[in-house]
Amino acid sequence: MKFTVHATDGAARAATLELAHGKVETPVFMPIGTYGAVKAVSPAELLENGTRIILGNTFHLWLRPGPEVIAAHGGLHRFMGWSGPILTDSGGYQVFSLGELRKITEEGVRFASPVNGDRLLLTPEESMRIQRALNADIVMVLDDCTPYPASERETGESMRLSLRWALRCKRWWEDSRREFDAGARAAEGNANALFGIVQGGMVERLRDESLAGLTSIGFDGYAIGGLSVGESKRDKRRILAHTAARLPADKPRYLMGVGTPEDIVEAVAAGIDMFDCVLPTRNARNGWLFTRRGDIKIRNARYRDDTRSLDESCGCYACAHFSRSYLHHLQKVNEILGARLNTLHNLHYYQTLMGELRNAVAERKFADYAEAFREERRKSGKNE
Amino acid sequence: MKFTVHATDGAARAATLELAHGKVETPVFMPIGTYGAVKAVSPAELLENGTRIILGNTFHLWLRPGPEVIAAHGGLHRFMGWSGPILTDSGGYQVFSLGELRKITEEGVRFASPVNGDRLLLTPEESMRIQRALNADIVMVLDDCTPYPASERETGESMRLSLRWALRCKRWWEDSRREFDAGARAAEGNANALFGIVQGGMVERLRDESLAGLTSIGFDGYAIGGLSVGESKRDKRRILAHTAARLPADKPRYLMGVGTPEDIVEAVAAGIDMFDCVLPTRNARNGWLFTRRGDIKIRNARYRDDTRSLDESCGCYACAHFSRSYLHHLQKVNEILGARLNTLHNLHYYQTLMGELRNAVAERKFADYAEAFREERRKSGKNE
Repeated sequence: MKFTVHATDGAARAATLELAHGKVETPVFMPIGTYGAVKAVSPAELLENGTRIILGNTFHLWLRPGPEVIAAHGGLHRFMGWSGPILTDSGGYQVFSLGELRKITEEGVRFASPVNGDRLLLTPEESMRIQRALNADIVMVLDDCTPYPASERETGESMRLSLRWALRCKRWWEDSRREFDAGARAAEGNANALFGIVQGGMVERLRDESLAGLTSIGFDGYAIGGLSVGESKRDKRRILAHTAARLPADKPRYLMGVGTPEDIVEAVAAGIDMFDCVLPTRNARNGWLFTRRGDIKIRNARYRDDTRSLDESCGCYACAHFSRSYLHHLQKVNEILGARLNTLHNLHYYQTLMGELRNAVAERKFADYAEAFREERRKSGKNE
Repeated sequence: MKFTVHATDGAARAATLELAHGKVETPVFMPIGTYGAVKAVSPAELLENGTRIILGNTFHLWLRPGPEVIAAHGGLHRFMGWSGPILTDSGGYQVFSLGELRKITEEGVRFASPVNGDRLLLTPEESMRIQRALNADIVMVLDDCTPYPASERETGESMRLSLRWALRCKRWWEDSRREFDAGARAAEGNANALFGIVQGGMVERLRDESLAGLTSIGFDGYAIGGLSVGESKRDKRRILAHTAARLPADKPRYLMGVGTPEDIVEAVAAGIDMFDCVLPTRNARNGWLFTRRGDIKIRNARYRDDTRSLDESCGCYACAHFSRSYLHHLQKVNEILGARLNTLHNLHYYQTLMGELRNAVAERKFADYAEAFREERRKSGKNE
């Protein structure tokens, strides 16, 4: 992995991330491919709408189809027909989301499979082993997702457990890499990057301790975890600004699970390079469409007879060929094509936004761009 | 509408159908676009896989979004983004399928809307009015779908009601056309063709009476209705052979709602030009895939680890990019992309078959082709 910053504007940066399966310009948005597919769209369409890297969910792929099936295809890329870069998460977030059904110990997390009830154990080493089989370009360490709210003491203990797990991930990864690179598959040029995840809840001091621990272990990139977990906007801004500014400047910075278009613009301003979120794809399936002039809920009866395109300034397949009335109709009758057209539009919106953010940084016009963006987004779809 | 037969081989024929929105080579298969969308695929993909004409369901579009919404787009073509020819059915088949919930009189069929319970009345004139708003290239008369089994007397009465309705359809259509052609929309070159439907159940004499009545009214094409309603294969063959041979040779012949690949090859041999069926699209969503070497049920556990493509001889997007294992996985986890890839494949299979049938007739090798087709299809997917 190689990371080169080309331009900065305030804290915002434009960079290139060179990965095993291709180059990625940052700031970048990664659509979510939960089960080895970005829901409702094809790999060809992802490329068309500007997507250059996607996220795969280790937890879901572990349970179905299982890492051995994906390994039989030589990894997730060939399995899902996506030849560009892939980042896989550690599986931790989904396991912790099981709530009462899981138990965290020093060793790892025990839980019952929601698919078939099997008793499973996710350890740092197991997460690495699965992600190695998936053969992602970027691999995430297993971390303990600190619940919100949590006391300072709980947050500190959780963060230190994450640090010990991060070290175990790094060790497994290094050992495995030696073995791996010596083996036949080294010829494929595999060079998965390993990212650490900064935890520490809403406490600056603990965020600093987490980051110091991670950098002393040494990772190819650093993510901020434990945000957008229910905290206030003010807390989120405070921790984001504090942490982003302290992440190593020569490594990619990844804000996990964020967010709305407004969240992304704000985080790019704080120096973040990478994002992932279910919003554009999940909201699309529910008929929630993002546009430059605010969001549109296409099920609304006002769109029943509206023969205009969703957004005349948008070049996506949905906006070029269909009316709001048609998208409204597809949503009302639950047509698969509706989920798909909506997803194409939302991803096109997100990827266009990311391209504009990259340009704004390169041209040192980020503040102006961000202001114009917010102004136009406030022109709600209600007035359309 | 213009219909030109280019070649015949036995009873089989290859022809060109020139319609308001384009030319169609026959024998042709029309995918079903129930709600103004062929389920799971886009208009661009339909064109790519060789589809040249699709079928729209008057009944469903009447209830949702309603003909006035579609008329506001200038017709179904612009509403659904499909610029090629469209055939619409009369709505009759769906209304009769409501069973106890509908009542047939001389006037038409009264029923309660399955969407909102509204009391509705479908008459020959109403079916024409809705199809006029949809502005299809080919419009079907409203007929009474004779139940199966039925006595000869019931069958005769039902067939004669269909004949009286066919005459009302023709009269409304002629009156409306005069008015319509005089109006502004005549400039659009609209020239919807009107097809009659031969009924008469399993009784040759009644089929003949139906056909004589329809040809004396005069239609642009003739369909065979009331087959594939539960009768034996032998009865179906008998009535198909009898009726197809007697349909006017200078008009297109349409076998409604048929069928499997084997059914289609048999019907082309009997002289049929046009087909529609839900099989390729509906079966696709259930994981039932058609191939040259028989059918594959992709949910079967034997495909879990099968890294081969579905059909190596197939050029569709699904076969070119994905493994059986991946399609199996998508089906198991209910991914939208699975329904879509399966639909692309099945439609590609059907359209490739139709192209080969057209070539076989043109080259006067139909019997050889049909024999080789049946032989290869018998090599069931079980051996794959």
